[in-house]
Amino acid sequence: MIVVMKTDATPAQIDHLSREIEGFGLKPQVIVGTHQTVIAAIGEERAGLVEALEPAEGVEKVLPIMAPYKRASSELKRERTVVKARDLAVGGNRVAVIAGPCSVESEEQIVALAIKLKAKGATGLRGGAFKPRTSPYSFQGHKEDGLKMLAAARAETGLAIVTEVMAPEHVELISKYADVLQIGARNMQNYQLLQAVGDSGKPALLKRGMSATMDEFLLAAEYILDRGNPNVMLCERGIRTFEDHTRFTLPLASVPYLQDKSHLPVVVDPSHGTGKSKLVEPMCKAAIAAGADALIIEVHDDPEHAMSDGAQTITPAAFATLMAKCRRVAEAVDRGL
Amino acid sequence: MIVVMKTDATPAQIDHLSREIEGFGLKPQVIVGTHQTVIAAIGEERAGLVEALEPAEGVEKVLPIMAPYKRASSELKRERTVVKARDLAVGGNRVAVIAGPCSVESEEQIVALAIKLKAKGATGLRGGAFKPRTSPYSFQGHKEDGLKMLAAARAETGLAIVTEVMAPEHVELISKYADVLQIGARNMQNYQLLQAVGDSGKPALLKRGMSATMDEFLLAAEYILDRGNPNVMLCERGIRTFEDHTRFTLPLASVPYLQDKSHLPVVVDPSHGTGKSKLVEPMCKAAIAAGADALIIEVHDDPEHAMSDGAQTITPAAFATLMAKCRRVAEAVDRGL
Amino acid sequence: MIVVMKTDATPAQIDHLSREIEGFGLKPQVIVGTHQTVIAAIGEERAGLVEALEPAEGVEKVLPIMAPYKRASSELKRERTVVKARDLAVGGNRVAVIAGPCSVESEEQIVALAIKLKAKGATGLRGGAFKPRTSPYSFQGHKEDGLKMLAAARAETGLAIVTEVMAPEHVELISKYADVLQIGARNMQNYQLLQAVGDSGKPALLKRGMSATMDEFLLAAEYILDRGNPNVMLCERGIRTFEDHTRFTLPLASVPYLQDKSHLPVVVDPSHGTGKSKLVEPMCKAAIAAGADALIIEVHDDPEHAMSDGAQTITPAAFATLMAKCRRVAEAVDRGL
Amino acid sequence: MIVVMKTDATPAQIDHLSREIEGFGLKPQVIVGTHQTVIAAIGEERAGLVEALEPAEGVEKVLPIMAPYKRASSELKRERTVVKARDLAVGGNRVAVIAGPCSVESEEQIVALAIKLKAKGATGLRGGAFKPRTSPYSFQGHKEDGLKMLAAARAETGLAIVTEVMAPEHVELISKYADVLQIGARNMQNYQLLQAVGDSGKPALLKRGMSATMDEFLLAAEYILDRGNPNVMLCERGIRTFEDHTRFTLPLASVPYLQDKSHLPVVVDPSHGTGKSKLVEPMCKAAIAAGADALIIEVHDDPEHAMSDGAQTITPAAFATLMAKCRRVAEAVDRGL
Repeated sequence: MIVVMKTDATPAQIDHLSREIEGFGLKPQVIVGTHQTVIAAIGEERAGLVEALEPAEGVEKVLPIMAPYKRASSELKRERTVVKARDLAVGGNRVAVIAGPCSVESEEQIVALAIKLKAKGATGLRGGAFKPRTSPYSFQGHKEDGLKMLAAARAETGLAIVTEVMAPEHVELISKYADVLQIGARNMQNYQLLQAVGDSGKPALLKRGMSATMDEFLLAAEYILDRGNPNVMLCERGIRTFEDHTRFTLPLASVPYLQDKSHLPVVVDPSHGTGKSKLVEPMCKAAIAAGADALIIEVHDDPEHAMSDGAQTITPAAFATLMAKCRRVAEAVDRGL
Repeated sequence: MIVVMKTDATPAQIDHLSREIEGFGLKPQVIVGTHQTVIAAIGEERAGLVEALEPAEGVEKVLPIMAPYKRASSELKRERTVVKARDLAVGGNRVAVIAGPCSVESEEQIVALAIKLKAKGATGLRGGAFKPRTSPYSFQGHKEDGLKMLAAARAETGLAIVTEVMAPEHVELISKYADVLQIGARNMQNYQLLQAVGDSGKPALLKRGMSATMDEFLLAAEYILDRGNPNVMLCERGIRTFEDHTRFTLPLASVPYLQDKSHLPVVVDPSHGTGKSKLVEPMCKAAIAAGADALIIEVHDDPEHAMSDGAQTITPAAFATLMAKCRRVAEAVDRGL
Repeated sequence: MIVVMKTDATPAQIDHLSREIEGFGLKPQVIVGTHQTVIAAIGEERAGLVEALEPAEGVEKVLPIMAPYKRASSELKRERTVVKARDLAVGGNRVAVIAGPCSVESEEQIVALAIKLKAKGATGLRGGAFKPRTSPYSFQGHKEDGLKMLAAARAETGLAIVTEVMAPEHVELISKYADVLQIGARNMQNYQLLQAVGDSGKPALLKRGMSATMDEFLLAAEYILDRGNPNVMLCERGIRTFEDHTRFTLPLASVPYLQDKSHLPVVVDPSHGTGKSKLVEPMCKAAIAAGADALIIEVHDDPEHAMSDGAQTITPAAFATLMAKCRRVAEAVDRGL
Repeated sequence: MIVVMKTDATPAQIDHLSREIEGFGLKPQVIVGTHQTVIAAIGEERAGLVEALEPAEGVEKVLPIMAPYKRASSELKRERTVVKARDLAVGGNRVAVIAGPCSVESEEQIVALAIKLKAKGATGLRGGAFKPRTSPYSFQGHKEDGLKMLAAARAETGLAIVTEVMAPEHVELISKYADVLQIGARNMQNYQLLQAVGDSGKPALLKRGMSATMDEFLLAAEYILDRGNPNVMLCERGIRTFEDHTRFTLPLASVPYLQDKSHLPVVVDPSHGTGKSKLVEPMCKAAIAAGADALIIEVHDDPEHAMSDGAQTITPAAFATLMAKCRRVAEAVDRGL
């Protein structure tokens, strides 16, 4: 950690900071510059240290040096993590595809759809049973009935079930049915939920919060990892910016960035990431070219009558075309699909 | 609702949309423009309707007309809501001040501080017992012990206790001690939590999510109101933007905007909104001048040794000065403090 | 255009608006809704109309229906524009590559580099002679001498010269040497400059402003097109968001979006778009997979000693690898490179 | 400057960096940390140094210590700058008010309006003669005729004329009529223009770019100051964020921040900053409470028929009320108006 002193900091203030740094178990090294003095604090940087030193008198700013996450870091664990749930494997050579409707609507619907998705190469089935909705007046999901419908689709196809969990008290129930627990963007910093999913040991698909930095995203993963659950997938699903021609802005540079900083596999969600069905296919291809380990895509037999998210949902026919095209891109970057 | 058809939409597509709109119980009115046809859908706009109509063929975009929130809207309830908890009243003529440390650290600390804050005019005492922290390695709060310390401070001073609740399962416990349940920015769309706070009937201080639009913010309030709890305060605490000289960007135009659209009172948090103690006083004055109904401010006896958020915390001495200055600004806009 | 009246708008206000709309040469059609009246204004939407109607009493908001740009729109011109300058052709089946240093430093440097770039498949040579720099104390470019160095590199290789023009009064001089005039992100709304480049008739590479919406970007192109210069390339170079792990956020969904709304070709700049040399290759591949018509890439023999932008610059060796990999991705989306 | 080396940086890389730092005339000091080595570079930090060192092998990141601006910094010049033009004085105890229409429309209009504004306490008259417009089809201003109309209004009232200059070649012409040259947000990084305004010696009102950081804003001012023109006013006019209920987000914390870092006076533009006439008065009061040295406000006799920006323009009657209210707030912070 580097403590930058103000240009008019007094020797007493510099001394005081040095003693504070020692008090935290670090070794201070004072560097007298042309205009300002800086103090390097040598040792293990702990969370909260920046906050602790910044308010002291004479301090201009405190610059952390080390990444704040540990277990998620590629420095601690060099080999890449592969998260597995049935035939779904995310993080290996093959790009995985998780597909399905925004909300599970009926058993008939989900089973028929799952068969089509499996036939085109999906290995995971997404579908919401507990739905977080911006408005209290929107459809909130079929809850446990929805989970049973997903289980029926799995019984038929073997696809791994990926479904969202919205509250710690639902983890146990949803774990009975699901293969992968999805944590939604709006819950990325719901720490009780992260810990409950960590305790469950179930594979987790953690969506990036719509205004989360990379450090915050990896620290959210850290909450799960820290409970002894190593099976975390990071999912880029778009961020909120000033752009208004898409629902969110999908920043694909986060894929190679995360893969460099962390050993965890990276999933991309071009459905939420764009909010427009027409943009899903090009962004799926782009995500694979950027190195994504998996895609998660909203597919519905009749997007116009989907109970949620119709505007960003594609049909099974469009999904079939997309898979064929994505397979070619995957091969061009030496991966399967 | 206005459905804008593409320039090359066919008569069959326009017909189809009209029937869809009727199917939702609205009356379609087709307007043939110079380049494009638009269809006005007359009747009650329900949540999910935009989503339902947007994916249909021939549709360019769907424009909602009505605000998506109802109970929070000033159109339904014209007189302004005043939320009361002990001597704390937010929404009336007097600007209320809630102050206290980021985290409750010890009974001695909180009682001594509460006495000082009360003496300078605070009517609410803030203090975290359950702390949401970005890193799992940061101090997470004293939990129920912290609540007891807050209760001791209330017993001494009569200040209303404002403290954060992070999970639905904590609502009952925290309600035993707190006068106001705070919902943090990261939980603004934790719907289970909103509903649990709604069910509790306790006054709620709802912080704006760091990337929430005004509609999303008011819809989050709607989740609480919809459970029959009318005691909701809206708290602007800053948004995430590209700015890096402050921790967040504090957009005060949201104060008069929210007061125009909603009958709910508006609180401003300049401590989180700027992240810098030096900027707290000017932004408190600005918030009052913009019409804020209350302020929530982080104060600590020794910010340098606070267990969290030291950089944005002010001392009791600075708080005393701030109160004197804010009182003059409040009077200049015909309010007390 | 749709004028949404307030819920308490009076008949007199509605009448007034209708007459205003007629005054602008449009036909008003009043639609009485359940809660609110809206007025559809039928006819040609002109710039400034929204602004003109919004302040009238009783108006809640004004919603434009038509795109504000005309000549850039794919509705007016269906076949795609191909911009050509020597062997550089942007917009056809083959993905074009423009490469070179941030700043031209010496004739020797630029000629030697151009030979290497040409050998690997580049058809355009980028290089700054007039440099817009955030600080007045940074290197500002070799100016006309730099242009002569670029011309020498073209004489040797035949590569088309792409270089930035920063002011209207430089257009004539730079046009003597350059094949393509680049308009930088910071000048996207420098209208005098856009018009001067429009008047020159030279192919233009227009960079997206770092906080420009798609409509603003296409309207900036409209300024050039409106002067009778059809040779405009749109360049996505990243936007400013809260993200801090990259220099900018590169939103590739703008590629298919722009290609849908406009007939103009789309170039992507992954060097500025990420600011990190390590992320250039994955984002080049992603851009091609998303459908980009061209790439513009910063290459320097010795990035560590480049006079500007070293951190995002790659070496000729890295460029050779990148070209080989990008060629495979281009083929996977049925394009050449 | 602090160079942070990667955890696996080799001694040779650390040596190499040390020599590079010496090559730039600074003194390297190597600090061996628990996980990483950092090198402090002692001496004058020049522009371009970060860029130069970052691409070197073994470097994780480079952290600058000193502010990149010099002449704008309050460290170099402690007493606050007061910019004067006729009766307009910005930066002293009295809060100045510059008011007027977005565009100058006719001599009759501007003279009549100027008389009203002066009567209520304005000391500056704003009005656009050369208008930068997003669309080439919008009204572009009356140009020199508009300047003459402004001069007529000054002859009648003595108000200082503040008008925008859009291109370096217009500086001479506009300087003949105007008292203050305004540089618009879209031109904040038009360096030719900044230099031309610097050379003119005329007082300059520099608007913040809609996505400019504070450092970039102050560096733009530096371009003017560096030409020997000390008369620069910094104008906060709102930034672009995800917020869509206002035209821009007006971040008032920039007022005390800029006043701390710089000696230049700070102006706030609540008209562009909110885009809504209804929000202008509360944000004017808030700006004064936050410490603004001046306000710039759009006023028009008939906003509904203004040739531009009607939605954010207030009437002379509203201006009179606003001035009375703002005067009270100014007094509450010990300033006049």
